[in-house]
Amino acid sequence: MWLAGNSIGKEFVVSTFGESHGKIVGVIIDGCPAGLSLAEVDVQAEVDKRIPRHTKIVSERVEHDRVHFQSGVFNGFTTGAPITMVVENIDLDSSDYEDMKDLPRPGHADYTARVKFGGFNDYRGGGRFSGRLTVALVMAGTVAKLLLNQFGVDVFAYSKAIGDVKLDKSLSYEHVRSHRYETAVRCPDKDTAGKMEEAIITARKEGDSLGGVVEIVGANVPVGIGEPLFDSLDADIAKALFALPAVKGVEFGAGFKAATLRGSENNDAFQMFGDTIGTLTNNHGGVLGGISSGMPIVVRIAVKPTPSIAKEQKTVALTTTENVTLKVGGRHDPCIVPKAVPAAEAAVSIILVDHMIRAGVIPKVLKKEQA
Amino acid sequence: MWLAGNSIGKEFVVSTFGESHGKIVGVIIDGCPAGLSLAEVDVQAEVDKRIPRHTKIVSERVEHDRVHFQSGVFNGFTTGAPITMVVENIDLDSSDYEDMKDLPRPGHADYTARVKFGGFNDYRGGGRFSGRLTVALVMAGTVAKLLLNQFGVDVFAYSKAIGDVKLDKSLSYEHVRSHRYETAVRCPDKDTAGKMEEAIITARKEGDSLGGVVEIVGANVPVGIGEPLFDSLDADIAKALFALPAVKGVEFGAGFKAATLRGSENNDAFQMFGDTIGTLTNNHGGVLGGISSGMPIVVRIAVKPTPSIAKEQKTVALTTTENVTLKVGGRHDPCIVPKAVPAAEAAVSIILVDHMIRAGVIPKVLKKEQA
Amino acid sequence: MWLAGNSIGKEFVVSTFGESHGKIVGVIIDGCPAGLSLAEVDVQAEVDKRIPRHTKIVSERVEHDRVHFQSGVFNGFTTGAPITMVVENIDLDSSDYEDMKDLPRPGHADYTARVKFGGFNDYRGGGRFSGRLTVALVMAGTVAKLLLNQFGVDVFAYSKAIGDVKLDKSLSYEHVRSHRYETAVRCPDKDTAGKMEEAIITARKEGDSLGGVVEIVGANVPVGIGEPLFDSLDADIAKALFALPAVKGVEFGAGFKAATLRGSENNDAFQMFGDTIGTLTNNHGGVLGGISSGMPIVVRIAVKPTPSIAKEQKTVALTTTENVTLKVGGRHDPCIVPKAVPAAEAAVSIILVDHMIRAGVIPKVLKKEQA
Amino acid sequence: MWLAGNSIGKEFVVSTFGESHGKIVGVIIDGCPAGLSLAEVDVQAEVDKRIPRHTKIVSERVEHDRVHFQSGVFNGFTTGAPITMVVENIDLDSSDYEDMKDLPRPGHADYTARVKFGGFNDYRGGGRFSGRLTVALVMAGTVAKLLLNQFGVDVFAYSKAIGDVKLDKSLSYEHVRSHRYETAVRCPDKDTAGKMEEAIITARKEGDSLGGVVEIVGANVPVGIGEPLFDSLDADIAKALFALPAVKGVEFGAGFKAATLRGSENNDAFQMFGDTIGTLTNNHGGVLGGISSGMPIVVRIAVKPTPSIAKEQKTVALTTTENVTLKVGGRHDPCIVPKAVPAAEAAVSIILVDHMIRAGVIPKVLKKEQA
Repeated sequence: MWLAGNSIGKEFVVSTFGESHGKIVGVIIDGCPAGLSLAEVDVQAEVDKRIPRHTKIVSERVEHDRVHFQSGVFNGFTTGAPITMVVENIDLDSSDYEDMKDLPRPGHADYTARVKFGGFNDYRGGGRFSGRLTVALVMAGTVAKLLLNQFGVDVFAYSKAIGDVKLDKSLSYEHVRSHRYETAVRCPDKDTAGKMEEAIITARKEGDSLGGVVEIVGANVPVGIGEPLFDSLDADIAKALFALPAVKGVEFGAGFKAATLRGSENNDAFQMFGDTIGTLTNNHGGVLGGISSGMPIVVRIAVKPTPSIAKEQKTVALTTTENVTLKVGGRHDPCIVPKAVPAAEAAVSIILVDHMIRAGVIPKVLKKEQA
Repeated sequence: MWLAGNSIGKEFVVSTFGESHGKIVGVIIDGCPAGLSLAEVDVQAEVDKRIPRHTKIVSERVEHDRVHFQSGVFNGFTTGAPITMVVENIDLDSSDYEDMKDLPRPGHADYTARVKFGGFNDYRGGGRFSGRLTVALVMAGTVAKLLLNQFGVDVFAYSKAIGDVKLDKSLSYEHVRSHRYETAVRCPDKDTAGKMEEAIITARKEGDSLGGVVEIVGANVPVGIGEPLFDSLDADIAKALFALPAVKGVEFGAGFKAATLRGSENNDAFQMFGDTIGTLTNNHGGVLGGISSGMPIVVRIAVKPTPSIAKEQKTVALTTTENVTLKVGGRHDPCIVPKAVPAAEAAVSIILVDHMIRAGVIPKVLKKEQA
Repeated sequence: MWLAGNSIGKEFVVSTFGESHGKIVGVIIDGCPAGLSLAEVDVQAEVDKRIPRHTKIVSERVEHDRVHFQSGVFNGFTTGAPITMVVENIDLDSSDYEDMKDLPRPGHADYTARVKFGGFNDYRGGGRFSGRLTVALVMAGTVAKLLLNQFGVDVFAYSKAIGDVKLDKSLSYEHVRSHRYETAVRCPDKDTAGKMEEAIITARKEGDSLGGVVEIVGANVPVGIGEPLFDSLDADIAKALFALPAVKGVEFGAGFKAATLRGSENNDAFQMFGDTIGTLTNNHGGVLGGISSGMPIVVRIAVKPTPSIAKEQKTVALTTTENVTLKVGGRHDPCIVPKAVPAAEAAVSIILVDHMIRAGVIPKVLKKEQA
Repeated sequence: MWLAGNSIGKEFVVSTFGESHGKIVGVIIDGCPAGLSLAEVDVQAEVDKRIPRHTKIVSERVEHDRVHFQSGVFNGFTTGAPITMVVENIDLDSSDYEDMKDLPRPGHADYTARVKFGGFNDYRGGGRFSGRLTVALVMAGTVAKLLLNQFGVDVFAYSKAIGDVKLDKSLSYEHVRSHRYETAVRCPDKDTAGKMEEAIITARKEGDSLGGVVEIVGANVPVGIGEPLFDSLDADIAKALFALPAVKGVEFGAGFKAATLRGSENNDAFQMFGDTIGTLTNNHGGVLGGISSGMPIVVRIAVKPTPSIAKEQKTVALTTTENVTLKVGGRHDPCIVPKAVPAAEAAVSIILVDHMIRAGVIPKVLKKEQA
């Protein structure tokens, strides 16, 4: 699945398949070490985190996904063979898409995909370009997380901003890790979360949508992970994050702010912490020269507002090439930032596992005590 | 050269080799179409743009690189075989590095590379992690640019901000393209360039350094380039840019600002422009769903301040694990943003060629009229 | 799916998943051009050719496979997205395998797989190493063949020898192509086929098994396909064929006989045939310097006798490391050569499509008239 | 260097560059573990074995290659960075090739390469398709062998047949290993070697050439190496061997003879040998199910007779498309089998190292005692 672009990773290779309104959405992991304890319920639990329940901030399309393993797991352990996991697509309504078939939605992939695939692409529900496809990533991400946990690594993400509402408190990583999924917007601070939720509901009422910023943290990543020059750890993480729908920016550590600092401000001094070498600050976001430093990996993504909005918009009718207007029907999230949180965790986890296998830190067969 | 990380691209595959203080720095391109007119002088001209001359803003290490072709060009045309290009390393002074061998410079790859490679890495001048390696990228980028030009595509970058000095005028792409290399800081506006240069000189005097922001534009890229879900055009461009030294952030179009906009503000309406479908605004930066839209690709990188500064800094002595201080000697640029400009152009050009070949837009053998 | 080894191809990438006694056996094709007319019945027809019916020469395990598409086909055409196809495993009896779990069958992968995967592999029915997995290849091969047909290329294989019975008549390729599936042993000559069938039945009665030779022909492959030095057309075809179970040798054209010829005997003289350049003989088997010559690709494989035989054999009990004897139960084919015929056709077809896309001969989107 | 076909290996990636009559022939290894002791003299010693001296059986083109390291080695050890090694092309005479430019030599890649690369290829001396390119493979193979030796693995090849002269004595592997380079034809039995040499001299006198069979043995390969289904150890070895010039067949263990045996004859019974599980015979050639069994890897290649012969041959003038005759001038080996011996050793060694790294048996950084 290399060249065609639907796979990521070189050792722990994740390939997605399926379409938003097709039979299934699925994922294959090839290269998962043998001997990892893995059950459908483990994956189900993560998939369930994708959709905040009992809230007005998500689409009315009900995604009650039920995870099915098809291969690669035997007697409760991974076998070293490709692991296939699928969820079925149910509760579909494709009628809106037939109407809009020739009217590309601004900000969406309708137009570019149609040109690229000569009109043969499955456009229903956005086809391959739907946020729905992130369920495949989350399934693979669960396996990655379970592997990371065996080696002490923990990955967690949270909403840092939605529209104009920013989380401006400093929270401990432990707090973030424990509480991030307790609010519908996936912000670990309840006050801020409340304001974010309100902002989303307001935007929805106005037929509009919001974007935001998600921060992802990788804790306890050992020193020495990453394969520069080109397969730098940050480069590969950035690539995986840009492959998520709606991501328009990625920054590590001080990020764009670093561009305004002086070297003496931005450099993170090395210091002994007990027996361990660390840095006094983490402007570098855990990656130096494309290689992990042992400090937490800290990366943020800019998520654009959902392009499918109820407000009238200008577009072009593709068959007649006339300028027309469009009102997007269907069921859409007014803000996809909350769904981006588990997807971003999955993306970063997959890359970390891939690189830890590449570096020889995670072996091809887990030892009995690991398995 | 796939797994080990020193190659980028899948069809137009660029692999760098060499070290800062070794014999040579070189690059191989495998997969360059046959029939491209190519001479050493073409590449020499681009390599010469790396180093602003007659200015106080660059390192005193004189890089008078002379490009040598070793393979892949015959009778003035590319043959379809691997193209090898090298420059020799001359005027070397490695003595400082022996002294600092056990004292990792804050913000640099000294520490992470040493751990990763078990201490066997060539640390002199930063080894593989020196900005010097971008000369290899620029050589390959020249070939990419010549190919792009055959298909009407043009890539150009410029300094948009250095430290606190921002280019706040709106310049036409034509102006940027024509004048970007006329100032030492690679800013196409002379007034702003003057202020940037002053800021760099000030920082240098204080033993400090500056970062900045570079914007790269890809003009006339045809619709339909990019291989989502994972080999999205933006994902692959971001990966290549993060592989440059000192890059801490990448954003497309509205970028991080998009996270604060509403859908109705951020969506770019489609509109006919003569016979062509375009968008009224370009918040999407030329990429929708990971596929080029026909609008200019617009991407910005955050470049951190040079980590090697004269000021005293804290670090750890690796052999004794004592906290110590360090004053970095050697010859270092007080700001690497100007050198990042041609490197970023090269990185984006390489990815565009790679994806245009993947999409079948650039053929494996150029027709006579193209060649 | 690159590194882990369960994929083949670089543009037309085929990845298999599933196990002999798991839920399903399946395949994903990533990189199939958009716009190919494709229906489940097309694939079903090829899968049905795997199992000769109404004959005593095959295993009693009834493989009535029913092909299901899961993704990648919409409105009767391929979309450019990954194509997933599966068959379910039914009529399973895994009891024999529990008994034999610690007794590796001579000539089989039981021992090597167990060591490689630390005992976590699914050993039932040989797991991933069962001939059953070739159904996945045949499904992918059907898609490859349909594509090849659009470009005039035809691939067909047949049994050239089984045990001591050799096809010694010279048959036209047209005859082979038309009649190869008319006999249970997949030999296009009825007399020879009868003798082959008898030989197999005799071997079975004696609790033994037979091997044989399959020849595969690729007709009308255009000149210029293949990517030497390493991705030579013959190298990649050989790799795909050695990945089939039980293949111990691969040769092109004159093959091992070429080693005994003189240059003047083995060289194939070029000659005009109407407007076309061809060769008077085809000792080179259609490949020169790793690139197709326009002459038919001719390749033969040596298939070893089925290792699972009823006769008592020596082996080692893995838990006690004692020398013991083993009688293999279960339902096994006394000769897998007939099943190797469609599998070999599939393998060669996949490689030819992959390389024709790589060479730019097959485009990424089929034009209307092609689709 | 992946897609374009000039690289092999996934972890230990070997990429060749250069042409027969260009400036240099070279090789890059990316992914070589750090910490291997390596000097130019080590590689020089292997390169010197390519050319038998003081004999009439080789071309008069004197290849006095002098190996130069360009990168990747520091203080006598590999650094983990790409290793570049080159030899210069000297004593060139390209005049014959200008005359023959439009007259493709039968059995050679002249015609197929010209079509593939649109006539832009460097045809002098066969360009990329010259046997000269195997010097690149031998350089990389030396590094592979040094690594294998650290882990107890030994690879050695020898001429088993040249024309009609076959080595029919059974020699111990120890004898073969020690004496294979003592005769000009690389046959470890002096009597047979004498006859082989005579046969070659006779063929040369008659303006003709001979082929032969080379056997390669990989001793002490640990159990569990190989990544089936597709990256089977035998599949990858076969691919590398078919990428050598003039190879028309590859077989493992009993090879094509296995097709005529019964299962009870061909199966290799498992048996304890001291503490180790082995097999009583080695018809499987050390690979079961694509995974190494711990028994010696035994593989043979069929090498066709040199296509460049002095005898008059038929061909086609490409510009006029007339049938014409050709007498090949230039300096050519009457038998390339002796030169194929070190090349085949190199190819197999490279694949074994690649797969031992993939299996985690060879680490990314050698420990001090290994280094």
